Amino acid sequence: MRMVETQEERPEIMERLHRVGITNLRTVAKINWKGREYTFLPVIEVTIDVPAEKKGIHMSRLVESITEAMSEAVEEEVAKVHSSLEELGKCVIERLEGKHPHRRAEVWIKTHLIIPRTTPASGRTSYEPYDVEVGVIKHEEGSFEKVLRVRVIGNTACPHAMANNNGKTHIQRAIGELEIRAGFDEEIPLEEMIEVVESSFSHPTYTLLKTVDENAVVQGMYRNPKFVEDVAREIFAKAKERFNGKIHVRVVSNESIHKHDVIAETWN
Amino acid sequence: MRMVETQEERPEIMERLHRVGITNLRTVAKINWKGREYTFLPVIEVTIDVPAEKKGIHMSRLVESITEAMSEAVEEEVAKVHSSLEELGKCVIERLEGKHPHRRAEVWIKTHLIIPRTTPASGRTSYEPYDVEVGVIKHEEGSFEKVLRVRVIGNTACPHAMANNNGKTHIQRAIGELEIRAGFDEEIPLEEMIEVVESSFSHPTYTLLKTVDENAVVQGMYRNPKFVEDVAREIFAKAKERFNGKIHVRVVSNESIHKHDVIAETWN
Amino acid sequence: MRMVETQEERPEIMERLHRVGITNLRTVAKINWKGREYTFLPVIEVTIDVPAEKKGIHMSRLVESITEAMSEAVEEEVAKVHSSLEELGKCVIERLEGKHPHRRAEVWIKTHLIIPRTTPASGRTSYEPYDVEVGVIKHEEGSFEKVLRVRVIGNTACPHAMANNNGKTHIQRAIGELEIRAGFDEEIPLEEMIEVVESSFSHPTYTLLKTVDENAVVQGMYRNPKFVEDVAREIFAKAKERFNGKIHVRVVSNESIHKHDVIAETWN
Amino acid sequence: MRMVETQEERPEIMERLHRVGITNLRTVAKINWKGREYTFLPVIEVTIDVPAEKKGIHMSRLVESITEAMSEAVEEEVAKVHSSLEELGKCVIERLEGKHPHRRAEVWIKTHLIIPRTTPASGRTSYEPYDVEVGVIKHEEGSFEKVLRVRVIGNTACPHAMANNNGKTHIQRAIGELEIRAGFDEEIPLEEMIEVVESSFSHPTYTLLKTVDENAVVQGMYRNPKFVEDVAREIFAKAKERFNGKIHVRVVSNESIHKHDVIAETWN
Repeated sequence: MRMVETQEERPEIMERLHRVGITNLRTVAKINWKGREYTFLPVIEVTIDVPAEKKGIHMSRLVESITEAMSEAVEEEVAKVHSSLEELGKCVIERLEGKHPHRRAEVWIKTHLIIPRTTPASGRTSYEPYDVEVGVIKHEEGSFEKVLRVRVIGNTACPHAMANNNGKTHIQRAIGELEIRAGFDEEIPLEEMIEVVESSFSHPTYTLLKTVDENAVVQGMYRNPKFVEDVAREIFAKAKERFNGKIHVRVVSNESIHKHDVIAETWN
Repeated sequence: MRMVETQEERPEIMERLHRVGITNLRTVAKINWKGREYTFLPVIEVTIDVPAEKKGIHMSRLVESITEAMSEAVEEEVAKVHSSLEELGKCVIERLEGKHPHRRAEVWIKTHLIIPRTTPASGRTSYEPYDVEVGVIKHEEGSFEKVLRVRVIGNTACPHAMANNNGKTHIQRAIGELEIRAGFDEEIPLEEMIEVVESSFSHPTYTLLKTVDENAVVQGMYRNPKFVEDVAREIFAKAKERFNGKIHVRVVSNESIHKHDVIAETWN
Repeated sequence: MRMVETQEERPEIMERLHRVGITNLRTVAKINWKGREYTFLPVIEVTIDVPAEKKGIHMSRLVESITEAMSEAVEEEVAKVHSSLEELGKCVIERLEGKHPHRRAEVWIKTHLIIPRTTPASGRTSYEPYDVEVGVIKHEEGSFEKVLRVRVIGNTACPHAMANNNGKTHIQRAIGELEIRAGFDEEIPLEEMIEVVESSFSHPTYTLLKTVDENAVVQGMYRNPKFVEDVAREIFAKAKERFNGKIHVRVVSNESIHKHDVIAETWN
Repeated sequence: MRMVETQEERPEIMERLHRVGITNLRTVAKINWKGREYTFLPVIEVTIDVPAEKKGIHMSRLVESITEAMSEAVEEEVAKVHSSLEELGKCVIERLEGKHPHRRAEVWIKTHLIIPRTTPASGRTSYEPYDVEVGVIKHEEGSFEKVLRVRVIGNTACPHAMANNNGKTHIQRAIGELEIRAGFDEEIPLEEMIEVVESSFSHPTYTLLKTVDENAVVQGMYRNPKFVEDVAREIFAKAKERFNGKIHVRVVSNESIHKHDVIAETWN
C-alpha cells in the first residue's frame, strides 16, 4: 500500500513558519560532565522551519533524532556521552540534518541540576536543586547559537524597613533568573551562572541547615540587606564581567508583608 | 432522524461510578451578598453518579444546569440573585433534579474573593485577594453537605532563630488553608474563615503599605514569632471554637533560608 | 519621626533597570464596553524603570495607582468607567505620572473573557471562556504601545491520517495564541482577535452542545482537516489582513496519539 | 555557646499535629530495579506527627534522613541500592527512627518513569513517560502502608458521536490516574499499574509513530470507542482483579469539541 505524504503538498495559505515541531516531550538523557555521568529526565522541544510551499513537517523524524541522540548517550560507551546539555542539543540537530530538510532548527532542554554545597558553619554537605534550560539554535546561514537559563532560589532582606525599624526588617524568599544568549562555542558553564545568581542574594540558601548553620544564614541576611533591585543589579554586573553574550536578568521576591510579588528586570 | 442514545445502553463492564461529569469549566457567576452584588469568573465542576447498568451520562444537561443557574443570577432581578456561592451550587443541583436521574451530585466552585481591609497605621483601604472553593454535595438519601475552603497568604517569623540570634530571625511568606465540611445549613461565612486564617500568622499582610504601615507590619512580625506548627494550631483552635464541622488545616511556609517548603497539617 | 528613604540612595552597583515593580497582584476591575459593564478579577503587573543612580522605587505608589484607577471604575458613575482593558492600563500609567518619576512604564492585565455564542444546530446560547492579556507600554519618548494577547481552545483533525485511513483520522484539542503589538490608538478589539483564532481551527468548540450540535461539530471537523501548521497559517494570514501591528502566532496541539504536544509558531 | 531548642518548649495552644515536615524538596535518587540502575530527580515530602505538648519539630533531621537514604544509593555499591521507590521511602523512615521521636511518619516521592515500548506496526522502540508518586506511611502502632499512584496519557473516541455520525466521531487526549493503598508488603509494581491504565483507553499512545504505526493507532481508536466512563470502569475492574488494596480511579478527557474537560471517578 502506498502512503500519502500530505506534508509534502502545497498548502492553501502560503506562509513560511519559523518554528514547527514537538514540545513537552519528557524523556531520559545522560551526559558525562568532567568525567562523571549525570542522568536527567528533561522536557524537550525540537522545532524546524517550514517553507511557504510545504504543508507540514514529518514529526516522527524529530522524535527519531531525539531518541537517537539520547541512545548514543544511554547505550554506547561512556566516552561517547555528550559532555553538556548544549552538546546534547546540538547532537539532536545534527541527527536532524540527514533526516528532514530545513534551514533553521531549535532544540530546548529543560531539567534540574542537583549540586552539592558545604553548609556555612557545620561544614555538612547539602544537595541544592536548580532549574536549568538550554536552547540550541541553528540559524539559516548555518551558525549555532545557544541560550542558557538558570533559576535559583534565594532571599531578600529589605534595607528600607531595616533603616526604619532599628535593624528589624522583612525577609522573604526570592527567585533569580539569568539568561545568556551567546555563540555556541562560548564557554559558559551552567554551574557558574548558578553561582553568579546564588551569590547575589542577601545570602545563599541550603537544603540542610543545622542550628549553627541557620544562625550563620540569618546573621548573614541581616549584614547584607538587599532590595530586589540590588539583587538584579549584582547578577547583571557579575554576569557582564564573566560571560560574553546577551544577558537578561529577572528577580522576583515573594514579599512576606504582601500577597503579591515584586520584580526587577534588566538586560543589555 | 432518530438519535442513538449510547449513554442509555448497558456497559460491558458493570461498575457503579461515583462521580461523572464536567470539570475545569470557566464561566461567569453573580451573587448578592449582604445587599451588594459580586461578580465572579469561577472554575466549576459538576458530577453525578452513574449506576452500574447505564453506559454514561448526558453531559450537556449538566452544562444546562450551570448555565441556567448562572443566568438566573445574571438576568433576573437582583432579589433573586443567590446569596452565597454555596446557594449557587445548590441551585445547580436543584436544576439537575428535573433534567438527569441520579442519586448523588456534587458541585464545586473555585474563585477569588477581593476584600477591603484597613492598613494598620495609615488607615488606608487595601484590597486583599483570597482563593476560595465551595463544594456542595447531595448525598444519596437526599441530605446536603457543603465543603468550604479558603487559602490565605501570610507569613512566619521563626521563633527558634530569634531565640538563638538576639532577636534576629528568618521571615517568609506562608500560605494557610482551612477546609470545613459541614451540614449545608451551618452558617459558616467564607469571610470569617479567612479572618481565622489571616489572624493566625505572625502578622496579616496587605497589598498597600505606606512606610508607617510597613513598619507596623515588620514590628508586629517580630513581636509574634511563629513556627508553621504554631500557625496551624492557632487556625485549628479558632476554627473549632467558631465553626461546627469537620476541620482540616494545612500551612506551608516558603522558607527564606531553604529552597524547599515546610508544612504543618492537622484535622479532627 | 523622620523616615529614611533608602530608595533614594545611590546604589553600590550603578546599572539602569528597565522594569521594576509589582507582579502577580490579583484585584478587581470593571470596564464599560459598548454600554454594558463587565467585572474582572485580573492579575496585574506594573513596572517602571530605575535610573542607575537611584537604589530603588517606592512600590506602594504603584499599588496606589492601580487601586485608584480601579476605584474610578468601581465607585464613580458608569459613564466614567474605562471602555477597555487597555484604557484601564493606560489610566494606571497616567495615575503614576504624578506619583513617581520614571521614563518608561508598563502595565500588564491578565484575565478571562466570557462571550456568548450560538450553537451550530440547536441555536442555543453557549458561554465561551477565553484567556486574554493586555499590556500597555509607555516608552521613554512618551509614546504609548499596546500588546494584546488572546488564547483560544479549539481542535485539529489530522489531514495526513485522514488521507491514509479512508477518512478516519486522529482529532485533538488544540490551543491557539495570537499576540499583536501595535500603537495604542490602533483599534484592535480582543473579541475580533478571538474570532480570528477560533475560526481557524478544524471547527470552533462550544461549552454547551446538544446531540444535534455535537453532530454538526464532528462533521465539521472531518470536512476541515488541519495540521497545527495549517491553523497557525490561517490565524497569521487573517490577522495580517485585519490588524496593523507586529503579529505573533503560536498553536499547540495536544495530540491524541502521542503523550507530547506538537507546535507551530510564526511572526512578522 | 548554648543553643535554645525552642522546638522542645510547651506551645501556647496544645493540639496534636498529624503531619509536620518538609515538602517540595527536589533531590536526586537512585534505585536498582531488576538488576538495572535508575536515576530520578524526584520531589519529596517527609512528615512526622507532633504531640500536643511539643512546640515544633527539628526539620533538619528530616533532611538528614533523606540525604542519608539517598547517599546509600548513590555512594555504596550497587548491591545496596534500594530496589523500588517504596523501599527508598521506607528507608527514609527507618533513618528517622533514631533521629527524631515520633509516632507516625510519612514519605512521599513524586517522579517520572520512562519505559521503552514497541510501536504497533513498525516494531520500533518508543520511550514513554509516566508520572508516578509513592507514599509510605508508618502508622502509630508500627505497621507500614503504601500508596501508589500512576498517571498515564491516553485517549477517548466518543461512542455516542460515532453512533450518530456514521462512524465519524470526536477523539481527544485523556489522562487516567490509578491509586492503590495497600499494606507495604503487597507486591504491586508501578509498571503493572501503568499497564492497567494504558490498556484501558481507546488505544495506547506512543512518542514515536511512523506512518504505518499512526494508521494502526487511528484504526485502533475507531474499533474501540470509549466514553470517559468506560475507561474508568475498565481500569477499576482490571485493578480490582490484579491488585489487593483500596483502589481509586480518575479519568479526565480533554474534549476536542468543548473548552472544558469531562471526568469519571470511582473507588472501592
